[in-house]
Amino acid sequence: MRIALGQFNATVGDLAGNVEKMKQMWARAVEAGADLVAFPELAICGYPPEDLVYKKQFVKDNRAALEELAAWVEGAARSDRGRAARDTQGRDALATTLVVGFVECSEGNLYNSAAVIQAGRIVDIYRKTLLPNTSVFDEQRYFKPGARPVIIDMAGLRVALTICQDIWDDQWLASFFAGAGRIDLMVNISASPFHVNKIYQRHEVVGDCAQIFRCAVAYCNLVGGQDELVFDGRSLLTDSMGRVVTQAKAFDEDLLLADIEAGEAGVHVRPLQPPVGQPKDEVEEVYQALVLGTRDYALKNGFQQVLLGISGGIDSAVTAAIAAAALGPQNVICVTMPSRFNSPGTIADAKLAADNLGCPLLTIPIEPILKPFNESLKAEPRWNDRGLAYENLQARIRGMILMSLSNQIGALVLTTGNKSEVSVGYSTLYGDTAGGFSVIKDVLKTMVYRLAEYMNELAGHRPGGAGLRPDGAGREAIPVSVIQRVPTAELRPNQRDRDSLPEYDVLDRIIMGYVEQDQSARDLVESGLPAGEVERVIRMIDRNEYKRRQSPPGVRITAKAFGKDRRLPITNHYTTTIRKPEIRNPKSETNSKHE
Amino acid sequence: MRIALGQFNATVGDLAGNVEKMKQMWARAVEAGADLVAFPELAICGYPPEDLVYKKQFVKDNRAALEELAAWVEGAARSDRGRAARDTQGRDALATTLVVGFVECSEGNLYNSAAVIQAGRIVDIYRKTLLPNTSVFDEQRYFKPGARPVIIDMAGLRVALTICQDIWDDQWLASFFAGAGRIDLMVNISASPFHVNKIYQRHEVVGDCAQIFRCAVAYCNLVGGQDELVFDGRSLLTDSMGRVVTQAKAFDEDLLLADIEAGEAGVHVRPLQPPVGQPKDEVEEVYQALVLGTRDYALKNGFQQVLLGISGGIDSAVTAAIAAAALGPQNVICVTMPSRFNSPGTIADAKLAADNLGCPLLTIPIEPILKPFNESLKAEPRWNDRGLAYENLQARIRGMILMSLSNQIGALVLTTGNKSEVSVGYSTLYGDTAGGFSVIKDVLKTMVYRLAEYMNELAGHRPGGAGLRPDGAGREAIPVSVIQRVPTAELRPNQRDRDSLPEYDVLDRIIMGYVEQDQSARDLVESGLPAGEVERVIRMIDRNEYKRRQSPPGVRITAKAFGKDRRLPITNHYTTTIRKPEIRNPKSETNSKHE
Repeated sequence: MRIALGQFNATVGDLAGNVEKMKQMWARAVEAGADLVAFPELAICGYPPEDLVYKKQFVKDNRAALEELAAWVEGAARSDRGRAARDTQGRDALATTLVVGFVECSEGNLYNSAAVIQAGRIVDIYRKTLLPNTSVFDEQRYFKPGARPVIIDMAGLRVALTICQDIWDDQWLASFFAGAGRIDLMVNISASPFHVNKIYQRHEVVGDCAQIFRCAVAYCNLVGGQDELVFDGRSLLTDSMGRVVTQAKAFDEDLLLADIEAGEAGVHVRPLQPPVGQPKDEVEEVYQALVLGTRDYALKNGFQQVLLGISGGIDSAVTAAIAAAALGPQNVICVTMPSRFNSPGTIADAKLAADNLGCPLLTIPIEPILKPFNESLKAEPRWNDRGLAYENLQARIRGMILMSLSNQIGALVLTTGNKSEVSVGYSTLYGDTAGGFSVIKDVLKTMVYRLAEYMNELAGHRPGGAGLRPDGAGREAIPVSVIQRVPTAELRPNQRDRDSLPEYDVLDRIIMGYVEQDQSARDLVESGLPAGEVERVIRMIDRNEYKRRQSPPGVRITAKAFGKDRRLPITNHYTTTIRKPEIRNPKSETNSKHE
Repeated sequence: MRIALGQFNATVGDLAGNVEKMKQMWARAVEAGADLVAFPELAICGYPPEDLVYKKQFVKDNRAALEELAAWVEGAARSDRGRAARDTQGRDALATTLVVGFVECSEGNLYNSAAVIQAGRIVDIYRKTLLPNTSVFDEQRYFKPGARPVIIDMAGLRVALTICQDIWDDQWLASFFAGAGRIDLMVNISASPFHVNKIYQRHEVVGDCAQIFRCAVAYCNLVGGQDELVFDGRSLLTDSMGRVVTQAKAFDEDLLLADIEAGEAGVHVRPLQPPVGQPKDEVEEVYQALVLGTRDYALKNGFQQVLLGISGGIDSAVTAAIAAAALGPQNVICVTMPSRFNSPGTIADAKLAADNLGCPLLTIPIEPILKPFNESLKAEPRWNDRGLAYENLQARIRGMILMSLSNQIGALVLTTGNKSEVSVGYSTLYGDTAGGFSVIKDVLKTMVYRLAEYMNELAGHRPGGAGLRPDGAGREAIPVSVIQRVPTAELRPNQRDRDSLPEYDVLDRIIMGYVEQDQSARDLVESGLPAGEVERVIRMIDRNEYKRRQSPPGVRITAKAFGKDRRLPITNHYTTTIRKPEIRNPKSETNSKHE
């Protein structure tokens, strides 16, 4: 049996567009002689549709789109092109089976379902049974679970259907199919969002599934960015030993083709394409996720261009480089907004960073605005220009300049804060957090440095190498002087991040433990982190929930990002301390760049 | 049997503070001779604790707080005061039963549970069985359901326990207790958030429960504000006919006492207190909800003072009046920030509105900032001062002034947008939406007018009356000239809301249908609304999800607010139209005051 996995980039709510993409992939699959074509979970409407499924009209329209696809498939099979495929491949396109995810409504209940379509007719429907309701998932908010296994006989093989989470619980899976007889191939259609190293978990889960049933597994994943989520594709096929035999592209559309043959010794998988390159490590994964997430957020929301403030620091340089990779450097407008607190080195590096990438640069000094603003605020007698409020004012003037330009020219503002800053609230609300998309908000500062080095390698620049050549080759994506600069917000004379924060390697370890793994202060101290820093950082993280609540979405790259993953109250008097619990001091709405 | 329902204002995460409040209420209840004292759902940790329950230390600390309460209760019973209560009331405080909600961890699973405490020991635990996972609720994210009914024999009565949602499904409830024998009293501990007219639903649900089992029902609800939610209290008791015999205060703490007597003809309830006043209609309910929600958000987050921009329009005047009622007028700093586009009438009304309430007023004209800002932005050749970007710039300068003052003096910024504006995005991101709490974000414009009139009645002002008297009585809370002003943003000459939006009565009907009831465009047109306006408004609502995502929390007063209630993707190509579905035009990041 020949199978095709149609890993495509769906857009939530774009029923017509998603169907169109599937038609094109279906035609290619049929020309390649596929007996079975599978598309991802909820491929008709995109994933996750969230509360759109509460709209009855949406669910109806999604059903109509499914039926339109089914009818088209039949028409195409009967067309000249369909007949040509049959003549070339010796297979009848009318006999090709299509499996596709959609929202099913039955007797007032909604299901996350897979339709099985043959000769233009929906011949069976499988309903997802395990509905994830933790992490970023809210499926029990919407869907009822299925209860019935679906197994299709096809080209001499017994093919079982599952949807995403269904295969992530071994024990349940075995009991669900107990008594269902032999399974030769398990088709799993998924919308499995990316996080760092998740691919290894997936290989394990899919491999376990193969071994339980001694069947091949065809795992078809979604690809593309959807708000905070990025789906990484990497659809794959294992043989009945659980070995990954072939894998589709990462972070790109792909049609994965293979032949499945059941024999005495098990079920074999024979790929029909040469292997494609895969990300070589987690830094490359993260880079590709950020590029795709940024591109899709911009383009799917109607923006060809982005703009951002470029400071001469590493965060904005890395953000600009990712945006340039996503949208082309000419579409990334860098704005440098110096004040009297910026060093000549920083100002020069801001220009160098933009120039190296080939991005347009606009310079708007903020002093002419800062000065009258400061004067006007003296109407409040307590106002002064020596504290946090004055520092935040500078950041906010920059945010307003970017938003004004955005409104005037229609480019999306990217914010440049990293996860270390976002965690402890080392940012100004409506200042550097102002914008539509926050590219590196889930990237810890230590990973930002690794990304910078990776991007320089990618650009062909070797550390300590010769620098610029006339043809631009060997030019650093991120100037070395930017990488080497001691982190500073430059909102007052001689300011440095480390005056307000622990060193970033310590800070990032605390964040990983406290935010991503829900460890307590005691756990962290026992793991060797300094008690004083642990308590200070946790207090900062807890107090800054209100800032994060108003920050733009950004690409999720970890198993716990700030977003749908982590739902904490703003009003919250709990703190975990090493000593006994105590009532937290009231926070003040400082929104400070340092706390 | 004498029962006491301890309706108290818990704070999420404030384990020690919540326990302290319960101790005080318990002592009062015991002095009043109570046999049974009940506190609300998750009273130990506050509701909803959200992802705090993922922290193992939090769950442990919550258990320790429960046990500390239990031990204290025993000690208090054995104390002089406990003995004095016994001597006065002829009841042994050691025999008083305490029912209190907490997070239970058992074999790695979490339960939303009620502990039954007698003589300092936890003698039984009931686990909530129906876990709501729609609307604002995510309980299946955290908790496993219970499976076992708990019935306690107490003072000759059979008392069953349930938690909140458990009694909202008649059929399930009857089957859950089938075979459990006679029930004389159903105790339901709840954390049931307010929305307009929900009290009638509650009366019905509680009454139905009473009739099913022919038992009295003691319904103990939480009170207080928690981020977007307000719990309205109104704990109540019904007799076995389902009649509401007594009801605790609305939007305030209360200890509701009654005697329960089972006889031949059913179970009777005899209140021990005179009836308390209840909100007379939905406007009064909304007013009280907004006041409590605002007070609790400010105080629980450590703010004694708030500040807001006051424009001379009705939204900011109403917001200021609510804040003044919540925190005292001296703690509500009004800032008027006129530009050349504001009429003399508006400027005068801004002052009058603040003066009438007795709030301090600060004046900071924006022209001295607007002018150099506009000059600087000419660095971008496409910049001009005649479009939306220039209008937004004015709103953002005002937002920055408020945030600068907030940072300097430590007052919380209140935003003043109403639900009609929030729905269609008639606001400037980081401009008038900048702030920590959005008092009327769930209040439609038509309701804002009703609130203004209600507050004037409350202040003793009769429409058409004599105006100011020397003692201030009869002074309008909201000046009549403010109420009568034609709505305008005053960001360009002669601007009026109705140039950009439908009339508010039409707009509000569309929002109620589309947002609150998930009706389609076709539904709305069939209900008599104009097709053109319906399509235009729906497009605006859909396109402005990104603005709402970054807006501050505010008081939820409807069954569907923008917040945890309504989870829609930002990236979303679906629109419901009267004609066949079409691909939406890309939105542009205009953040405009009019779209």
